[in-house]
Amino acid sequence: MYRPQNLRIPGPTFVPQAVLAASARPLINHRGPEFAALLAALTRALQDFLRTEHDVLLLSASGSGGLEAAVANTLSSGDKALVFSCGAFGERFAAICKAYGVDARRVDVPYGRAVEPDLVRDELAKEKGKDAAKAVLITHNETSTGVLNPMKDIAAVVRDSGKLFLVDSVSGAGCTELEIDEWGIDVCVTASQKAWGAPPGVAMVTMSPRAWKAYEKSNLPKAYFDLATYKASLEKAQTPATPAVTVFIALQESLRLMAEEGLEAIIRRHRDLARATRRGLQAVSLQIFADERYASPAVTAFRPPARVDARNLIRLLRDDHDTIVAGGQGKMEGQLVRVAHLGFVTLQDIVAFFSALELTLRDLNQPVEPGVAMTAALRAYAESQQQTSRPAARSSSTARSANDAVATRR
Amino acid sequence: MYRPQNLRIPGPTFVPQAVLAASARPLINHRGPEFAALLAALTRALQDFLRTEHDVLLLSASGSGGLEAAVANTLSSGDKALVFSCGAFGERFAAICKAYGVDARRVDVPYGRAVEPDLVRDELAKEKGKDAAKAVLITHNETSTGVLNPMKDIAAVVRDSGKLFLVDSVSGAGCTELEIDEWGIDVCVTASQKAWGAPPGVAMVTMSPRAWKAYEKSNLPKAYFDLATYKASLEKAQTPATPAVTVFIALQESLRLMAEEGLEAIIRRHRDLARATRRGLQAVSLQIFADERYASPAVTAFRPPARVDARNLIRLLRDDHDTIVAGGQGKMEGQLVRVAHLGFVTLQDIVAFFSALELTLRDLNQPVEPGVAMTAALRAYAESQQQTSRPAARSSSTARSANDAVATRR
Repeated sequence: MYRPQNLRIPGPTFVPQAVLAASARPLINHRGPEFAALLAALTRALQDFLRTEHDVLLLSASGSGGLEAAVANTLSSGDKALVFSCGAFGERFAAICKAYGVDARRVDVPYGRAVEPDLVRDELAKEKGKDAAKAVLITHNETSTGVLNPMKDIAAVVRDSGKLFLVDSVSGAGCTELEIDEWGIDVCVTASQKAWGAPPGVAMVTMSPRAWKAYEKSNLPKAYFDLATYKASLEKAQTPATPAVTVFIALQESLRLMAEEGLEAIIRRHRDLARATRRGLQAVSLQIFADERYASPAVTAFRPPARVDARNLIRLLRDDHDTIVAGGQGKMEGQLVRVAHLGFVTLQDIVAFFSALELTLRDLNQPVEPGVAMTAALRAYAESQQQTSRPAARSSSTARSANDAVATRR
Repeated sequence: MYRPQNLRIPGPTFVPQAVLAASARPLINHRGPEFAALLAALTRALQDFLRTEHDVLLLSASGSGGLEAAVANTLSSGDKALVFSCGAFGERFAAICKAYGVDARRVDVPYGRAVEPDLVRDELAKEKGKDAAKAVLITHNETSTGVLNPMKDIAAVVRDSGKLFLVDSVSGAGCTELEIDEWGIDVCVTASQKAWGAPPGVAMVTMSPRAWKAYEKSNLPKAYFDLATYKASLEKAQTPATPAVTVFIALQESLRLMAEEGLEAIIRRHRDLARATRRGLQAVSLQIFADERYASPAVTAFRPPARVDARNLIRLLRDDHDTIVAGGQGKMEGQLVRVAHLGFVTLQDIVAFFSALELTLRDLNQPVEPGVAMTAALRAYAESQQQTSRPAARSSSTARSANDAVATRR
């Protein structure tokens, strides 16, 4: 039976047919010239998108593996680290530290709120002297709550402290502003199945020269995630172990599509679709979980109507309308619905989501006038489009090479 | 330009079109019911093929990641381990121990030779008392030299010692006899891109009850590779981090194809094609590197003709005939050619390889009569087929379910 899904979870995100087709090409030798060309091109394209001239290393693992690499390659057992957390992924970053014997002090902000630069400044003021934290760890886009931390301003504060700066941008990179070199991020992690619109299986990790200096002193055990072996192999255009070749090929194709759109247009699209999603939800009186000022461009978390279990709403969306959204994680289970607008997503996908949501709300006996949410989303999007200057909007549909696309942004 | 490759490297192996097509299906929610069904079915099929009733855990990583999981989940810093090595992958297993502070005593046999049960017995005799090795680590099929260690007999010796038994069967499982439970293997590792004929990106790790007991005492840091989190997630038919979904789907399809053939027929095919390959090589006076008694069913390593650099031969095969073979690894670089007959490989693939090899040898001014190697390979294969009883040979082409295929073998 033909039942196409509207995959609206924050990763794996929707993968375009062209990218899926690329991933289904016959396998190649991962030690031969074709893979060498692929890896070199991928690395360059990622450097462009991640705004870094430093190393970008491709690990065959999911984003969590990349976060572990960030910790294991730069810290030592007993080192202190300051972890700012506003949700499940901040907690995971701290848990990885703990697993490795790194003494992580976790500073939590309530779920739905962002880590503000002033908090970072205050907490860093406590980290002076011999016993001070060596590194600051933070999540850029907190997928579990739909919060985007104001990384540019946080980075400025961390930079002043001189501490090592490790950023989980697994679901942030490629959909929102991120200037790895300019902001002084030492290690940044992202993953193929998020904004990049490729299948899961590849984590990308950037390493600054300062991070490599920290590597020299790090005594944590590492083998598969030993980034020095990735760097050494990269010089021969290889990877230390057999790479997830089909995901690498898919990623090259999705980066090609992204370069055609251009990073600026991609960021704008995410911002506008996220805003349209919030307006649509609000039009049917659903409460957005995140602080509006720090609402994520990747995913919107909202509370179900009163006396409705989020799990029930999610199941109806799936079973009756093939619309796949996520629920709350950890202590938020049953209390949140999370709808993603991450990666290769269009206004049509969001409108389709609202059509399913409206019907589901009616089935749950909620007083919803048909079309209200869809219309509010469309209207919000149209407003955003009007505010965007016409020539810039048009250039986004013109095919350009990855280098051109990024060059216009520099 | 249409230039199909004859991919004759020992992984990534050739992936059938049906498997590639499966891997290109639209992405699904890795927390939803479709993935749950997929993971449950995959786990059951792998238990059948790996001949174990214990846990089979699926990691989104390559085989080396699985080897690291084997070490990090069962040993502690300062533990002693006895590592038998006959090539590059034995050395890698020892290197992983070293990275984790496990005191690995490596017993090397010369490249091209197998680890014999008597050697294992002699070395284990030295491991008595308080300072004795806690675990024995060994490679089943040594891809770098084309040697298959006689694991059944080795296992009997290790079992008598009572030590923990960790086996790298990354390139052995699924193409040769392997009885994980019957032989008493505590942790066994394999990977999707080897005999399983799926794209790279997934490692499979089995854990016996004894291995789980060792886990309780293990103090090595682990997060992404913490197998207890995989076991806990598996009970909810999930994985702890985002899995390489497209590779999981591909693996399900390749296991379906393998179940149709049946494990016994697959093992016979590998044995017969390996023998045909050796006979073809010998017919043109090329020297097989491995001891014939322990020749690998997965890959055959051979020396190039005198005064020919293996790298040159490999390049000509690739550039002139789109035939992709591997070279020597580590200290054998330039001295070996490795041709694989692993996974979804047929006699036609081997004959095609020999047609390319014969032409290349002529271009290198070697005295080769056209057809000699091809004919010798075909003849050897035909002999093997005659020795196999007709009904058994025919049943291999009959479609059967995974359970049926394994049931006939039990």
